Amino acid sequence: MNYQQQMDRAYALTEEYLASCFQGEGLEKAMRYSLMAGGKRIRPILTMLFCQAAGGELEEGLEFGCGVEMLHTYSLIHDDLPCMDNDDLRRGKPTCHKVFGECVATLAGDALQAAAFRTVLFAKGPWSGEGAAAPALAAGVLAEAAGVQGMCGGQYWDTIGDGQPHSLEDLTAIHDKKTGALLRAACVMGVLACSGHREVDDSCIDAAREYATHLGLAFQIRDDVLDATSTTEELGKPVGSDSANGKTTYVTLLGVEGCREQVVEHTRLAKEALERGGWRGSIGCLCWLADHLAQRSN
Amino acid sequence: MNYQQQMDRAYALTEEYLASCFQGEGLEKAMRYSLMAGGKRIRPILTMLFCQAAGGELEEGLEFGCGVEMLHTYSLIHDDLPCMDNDDLRRGKPTCHKVFGECVATLAGDALQAAAFRTVLFAKGPWSGEGAAAPALAAGVLAEAAGVQGMCGGQYWDTIGDGQPHSLEDLTAIHDKKTGALLRAACVMGVLACSGHREVDDSCIDAAREYATHLGLAFQIRDDVLDATSTTEELGKPVGSDSANGKTTYVTLLGVEGCREQVVEHTRLAKEALERGGWRGSIGCLCWLADHLAQRSN
Repeated sequence: MNYQQQMDRAYALTEEYLASCFQGEGLEKAMRYSLMAGGKRIRPILTMLFCQAAGGELEEGLEFGCGVEMLHTYSLIHDDLPCMDNDDLRRGKPTCHKVFGECVATLAGDALQAAAFRTVLFAKGPWSGEGAAAPALAAGVLAEAAGVQGMCGGQYWDTIGDGQPHSLEDLTAIHDKKTGALLRAACVMGVLACSGHREVDDSCIDAAREYATHLGLAFQIRDDVLDATSTTEELGKPVGSDSANGKTTYVTLLGVEGCREQVVEHTRLAKEALERGGWRGSIGCLCWLADHLAQRSN
Repeated sequence: MNYQQQMDRAYALTEEYLASCFQGEGLEKAMRYSLMAGGKRIRPILTMLFCQAAGGELEEGLEFGCGVEMLHTYSLIHDDLPCMDNDDLRRGKPTCHKVFGECVATLAGDALQAAAFRTVLFAKGPWSGEGAAAPALAAGVLAEAAGVQGMCGGQYWDTIGDGQPHSLEDLTAIHDKKTGALLRAACVMGVLACSGHREVDDSCIDAAREYATHLGLAFQIRDDVLDATSTTEELGKPVGSDSANGKTTYVTLLGVEGCREQVVEHTRLAKEALERGGWRGSIGCLCWLADHLAQRSN
């Protein structure tokens, strides 16, 4: 399989797994609506690719990855609520609360967070020996990334802030919590998924964390560029909302050209970080993915 | 120690542990506000008493119990939001969103759910042998109880329902999910906390589940009676809101006298269930607690 095919395979596995969850009526319908609303599935793809790089199979990272995706989806549902970013569109579709109402959207997010931990903790092995601890370790990584020191803390500072424009340092610190923490968890959990079955060199965890940090920064800077330069049709969501809200972004701080340089630089650093891990599988697809995301147009 | 002293000790341990969490500014302030707003701490007390009944020490159930309390607190914060029950007062104090705003209250709840899993997963042992799996097992129990099959699903049906008055069967099914599931988790997690250090008879898990189910029903029916017969000052929250909202409660279905009989019956069944477990410690305090809660006035 070439790299695109590996990514397509990880994507297809994710879609298939997630589609099998929450098939009931009531609250499950709202959970399913947002979960299946067509994301890029970058987080579960990263989890699976890291599992493969550490020496495992893509499939062995599937459940941990889908747990991360559920957690990511809950955060999007809550971020879109009127009391938060008040967005009507997400990925070209009405947001969860526009379809189901605020009460159900709040509960759907809450239930997806619980489901994320459930999915990771009950991930089917076959775990062996010390590897039996892998689901607990992975869930612990996820809990740290999701909480007040990670994603929720980042969202708080991004939304509430201190009423002042952010410096480049502040902006990076916020994004590092808001999106970086969960990307790091996705990558590390891939290595942990492999360690549940096989021996894995400790250096892989650090390399995964560093790759994720730079990938996340490149991703966020690219996002800001796209928000400033694309159309609503291209992105499937309203554009220009950042500048309309007077929000500080990488584009307001660095300009479009400065941003493009930073995307290139962080993509390079992400790939460089990978080389410091003692991988038993191939890191080729992870390098390719970093380049691929740096050039994305939506 | 007599039973009241054991309960006071478990309560004091909980207050001390929770007060040591979230001491920072920003989002942590809102988490701390709701966490320290003076609950009865029934869930962590149950966790600790079940750990003791299974043959362990109260303290060994502390962290699992505090994880459950964090999860319970998040659910209260979200339930109080304007898009849910829209309550201004909780335990005699302004609700989280009245003090910090809806956005922060939503995030504080989200972060407390993550913190609940983190607290359980990183609970300090010393776990031994097969007992090393205790935090993962406990977190799995918590995830199931918190999700769409448990608490969130119950809250959904309670808030959204089907527009029709509920039958006694429906009402019990809703409360069993909305509050019963987490009480069961609290009790089972206490047994699991003990099993991380010591041998525990399997029968204890089933007995804990059944005790929790009946205790939860007795508790809820007592709650409905208090809502119908107390004053705002006695309860520390607005009373009569159920009947004002035209909501079906145990009082509307059974009358106050019928409710009192059911509280007695479920309290008896809770204590009877305990006798089916192979406990190595004393169940005396758990029996006393069931009686104590049946007679509570707030």
